[in-house]
Formats: sequence, structure tokens, C-alpha cells
Amino acid sequence: VPLPERLLISRIRRVAAKQSGKYPALGIGDDCALLRVPPGQEILATTDFSIEGIHFRRDWHPPDSVGHRCLARGLSDIAAMGGKPSAALLSLGVPAKLPQSWVDRFLRGLLQLGNRFGVPLLGGDTSQSKAGILADIVVLGTVPKGKAILRSGARPGDRIYVTGELGASAASLNLLLSGRKIRAADYSAHFFPEPRIHVARFLRDKVLASAMIDISDGLSTDLEHICQESGVGAQVWSEVIPKGSVGKSRQEEVDFGFALNGGEDYELLFCSPRSRRVPRRIAGVKVTEIGVITRERLFRLQRNGKTFTLKPQGWEHFKW
Amino acid sequence: VPLPERLLISRIRRVAAKQSGKYPALGIGDDCALLRVPPGQEILATTDFSIEGIHFRRDWHPPDSVGHRCLARGLSDIAAMGGKPSAALLSLGVPAKLPQSWVDRFLRGLLQLGNRFGVPLLGGDTSQSKAGILADIVVLGTVPKGKAILRSGARPGDRIYVTGELGASAASLNLLLSGRKIRAADYSAHFFPEPRIHVARFLRDKVLASAMIDISDGLSTDLEHICQESGVGAQVWSEVIPKGSVGKSRQEEVDFGFALNGGEDYELLFCSPRSRRVPRRIAGVKVTEIGVITRERLFRLQRNGKTFTLKPQGWEHFKW
Repeated sequence: VPLPERLLISRIRRVAAKQSGKYPALGIGDDCALLRVPPGQEILATTDFSIEGIHFRRDWHPPDSVGHRCLARGLSDIAAMGGKPSAALLSLGVPAKLPQSWVDRFLRGLLQLGNRFGVPLLGGDTSQSKAGILADIVVLGTVPKGKAILRSGARPGDRIYVTGELGASAASLNLLLSGRKIRAADYSAHFFPEPRIHVARFLRDKVLASAMIDISDGLSTDLEHICQESGVGAQVWSEVIPKGSVGKSRQEEVDFGFALNGGEDYELLFCSPRSRRVPRRIAGVKVTEIGVITRERLFRLQRNGKTFTLKPQGWEHFKW
Repeated sequence: VPLPERLLISRIRRVAAKQSGKYPALGIGDDCALLRVPPGQEILATTDFSIEGIHFRRDWHPPDSVGHRCLARGLSDIAAMGGKPSAALLSLGVPAKLPQSWVDRFLRGLLQLGNRFGVPLLGGDTSQSKAGILADIVVLGTVPKGKAILRSGARPGDRIYVTGELGASAASLNLLLSGRKIRAADYSAHFFPEPRIHVARFLRDKVLASAMIDISDGLSTDLEHICQESGVGAQVWSEVIPKGSVGKSRQEEVDFGFALNGGEDYELLFCSPRSRRVPRRIAGVKVTEIGVITRERLFRLQRNGKTFTLKPQGWEHFKW
């Protein structure tokens, strides 16, 4: 075992051990992490890659942003089920020459987000990597038995809602791709996305959502996932889709295409029976009704008085 | 999302969905995997990388061996805590040109091992990889509350035991490194290691083990881990360390150095109070007493009438 990896393990262990004192129900490291589950709860588990050159670039993303986004992906999956995140494990592969300071800042970004939601890092695995940095985050959570909000519960007539605003992450990525230097602070939706744990918790407690998913692949794609799993279609009014803003003091509203198709916003997309009253703001986050679930298994998008119709499987590739 | 990755996701989902019918307490996919926990149980969670060029080589390891070894690493961690494995999640990153047949055979190797221990694949994540194949396995398991066997429970006077035989995996790797072509069937300890789930379960049920670890890094290193966590030392009789055999009809016994320092055997190393009677064979697997835990925090190895003494931190690098 080469020295850097041994140091890395002990660094993560030390960090993990320091936190665990705050979480008496959790056990550190050993061969496995140990997690106590309150009675009447089911376990949620999710795993998400963050691979250099695929999910992030070292010349674009500061290390604390990479760490934040790594954990945010997992937390957002837990939110999408209406769950409460309990703990995280991290598999981290690093090139031999990676500076220790990169790892420290990566871990700091990850742990700061974790601390805000009471999610300790319980350990994981480390390895050398011959190519770039490889991270795989595991997040475990709990949800009361039978109360998980699935993708499959949408019914014709249900209203469709999204939290926050959409497209700012994709618009930021587009700027990065075009060679623009942008400051993380001005494009926080991309660099430091906020998993909607508290909104999801409210929706679950009030039994408001019949189906839910987080918008990681884009509104059009993730709505298709809900429709496929629920065996339904959807009609969406494009004018009311809340478009994100980017730049200093957020003065630039993003193009509609980014809001419709852009991924990695980690907002929630959920359906709610017509009879339920959904607040316009939940846990400080704007909630917008954007359409309705239909019996007919098509995606209908109304825009400028016209209706565009797409078939399932097709709309994932829909370019505006 | 490029086509190969979408196919990969649906392939894994299909495989996962097919299994889940057999496991009514488990839910598939969605944003998270959903896992029901029997009352009175704690959750175990472990994550382990299998990275091409680090943990395996495509020209050395057949895909079903890579899949088997990937899951075996996680199952062995669950065994090391005395746990019962419940489910697995897989993050899989593949290069654009990887043949689908490789993935199919990899999954077959992984699922065949999983089926033998009642461990379904509940989903995970997929990604492209710009370098080689990247797999990260997550295994979840359960253990009765407070009954997990930790590394930290070894006490002076406890006897030290190992299951099976040691060094065959490292000896096989050594042949591969030297350029020898070897058949997976003749070197199964390396290509298809057997996680000792049933032995661990017996030890836990009978409360025989005060501390336990799986031998993934080598007997000397993993015994050091137990000693460090328990604040003790160890004395080992080298003559009784059970050496593995390799080759057709297993006619070649491996060198002592492989048995002492070689990793990836995935046998169990455990300690047991002197008063407990440990069977010589558990669940069909040989169990050998190899030494005793000491108060003095040193590693003493007796060999050919001489005693070699090493200090902690040092013996991890001990070369015979």
C-alpha cells in the first residue's frame, strides 16, 4: 500500500471519528459502518459516482464544490423518496500526485454540507487511481414504513409541481463549456446545489405527494421517468416553468431550453392529487404548479398558444 | 446521456427487478433502494472499489471473476462483523468501447455469488469512464443489536484463529505478475474467493469471537489492525499458519511469506477467550489456532525456534 493512500485512509478515519461523537446511534469504520435504525422505519440507500472528466473538471470546479456536489447528489436521492438522511460512506480513488490540500478541501465541502443535515461520514474505501479522481458516495437514510414517495404513484388529474427554479446549473455548465471563467459564488446553483431535504420532509409529513423524483437529468427526462413508472402522461405549461437566474446578483435569467432539459438542479418534481392544497412556499422554497398528469401516455407541452406533443422514450432527447 | 450508458442502466434495472420478486422485503430502484429491517437489528454498510489496473486487469481476470471478486469484497466485510448480508448496490463506470458481453459476464459472476447468499442487487449508478472499468460495490447487512463483532474486542490471553488457508491468492497474483498464464479454475482462491458468511454467523450465534476482521490486506497487516483497535499485541507460531495450495489438484503449497503477508484471501481472523471451545471445523471450513493475544503491544513471531519481534506500525511492512 503506497504511502499517500494510507495517509488518506487515516485522514478520512480521523475526520469520521471526530464526527461520530455527535451521533451516538452510529458506529465508525471497522470492517463496516454500523447504523441503528429507529423502530418502524425502513432503510433508504443510494450510491452516486462523481468522476473527474465526467461529472466535474478540476480546472472548472473548486475542490469544496466537488465535495459538496458529490454528497448533494446522494442527499437529493434521499429527499426524492421523502426520507431523512442518516449517514454517508465515501469511496475515494486519487491519483498518486494529487495534493493533500485538494483532498482536504474536497472533504471540507462534503462535510460542511453533511453537518447542515446531520449526516456524518462513517467511512468508506480509498484507492489509488491511475486516471483522475474517482468518488462514489453512498447515502443511507430512513423513512417511516410504507411512507416512501415513489416514482410510480402519479395518477391522471394529479397536479405537477417543481421546487425552486430550473436551468441555472445547465446554463452555468454551458458557460464553462464555452470557455468562460465563472465564479462559484455567482453560479451557486451549479457549484453548490441545495438538496431539498426539508421540502421533501414536509411533503411526506403532510402526505401531499403522490409521486416524486429529484431533477438530476432535467425536467423533461425526470418527468418522463415519473410518467413511465406511473403509466401516465403529462401536460405542461411552458410559460410557468420557473427559470433560474445566474450571474452576480442573479441578473441573467436562463434560456427556456435549460429550464426544460438541463440537469443537475436537484430541485424536486412531484405530483399531488387535485384535492390536496400545496403551499406556494415550503421550508422557504418556492413551489410552482407547472402542469397536470394525463391518462393518455403522451407529453404535451403548451407554448405560445401551440401544443407540442411527444411520445414516451422520445421526449428524453427533446431539444427545444 | 450516450446510448451505451442508458442500455447499461436498463440492463442492470432489468436484472435487479427480476431478482426482487424473490425478496418481498426489498424495493427496487426508484431514486433509492428501499430495505425493510427486522426489529432488533442494526444495519451494516460497506463500500469497496474494484478499479481496473489497480484491483484487476482485463487480460488477467475473466469478467465473471471480476464480478465475483467485486461482491466478495463487500460480503467479506459483512462477515467480518458477524452480519447477515441483505442487499447490494453497484456503481459501475465503463469505457465507451467496452463490449456488452463483458458487462453481462461481469454481472453474471456478481449475481451468481449474490444468489448463493440471498443477496439481491438493488440498483446503483452507472457512468461512462474515460479510463478503465470502475466498480464500487455497496453491501448492506444486518446484525442483532449490540452483537456486531468489532476489531476492538481482543483481550490478553485470547487465542488467535484463522479460517481456511492463507496465501493462495497472493501466490496466484505473483504468478500473474511474473507473466505466467494461469487458469482461473486452478487458482480459485484468487479468482473466486469465498466470503466466510456462514462461519461468521456461527461464531456470532455461539458468541465465540471477541474480535474479528477479514484478511484482505494480509494476516500480518490485519492482525495489526485488531491489535491497534484493541490496544494489545500478539504472539504467533509461524509453523501452524495454514498455507494455501495452488495449481491443478492443488499440489503446490505456497511460500510462508505469502501466507503471512499476502492479501485478498478473504479468510477470517478472529480472537476467542481461552475459556471458549472453538471447533476445528465450522460450516465445512477448517479453523486453526495460530497464536495468542498479549498485553505487551508487540508482534512476536516464533519461527524455527527463534522469536522475531516487531513494533506496531512496523509490522505492516514486514517482509519475510
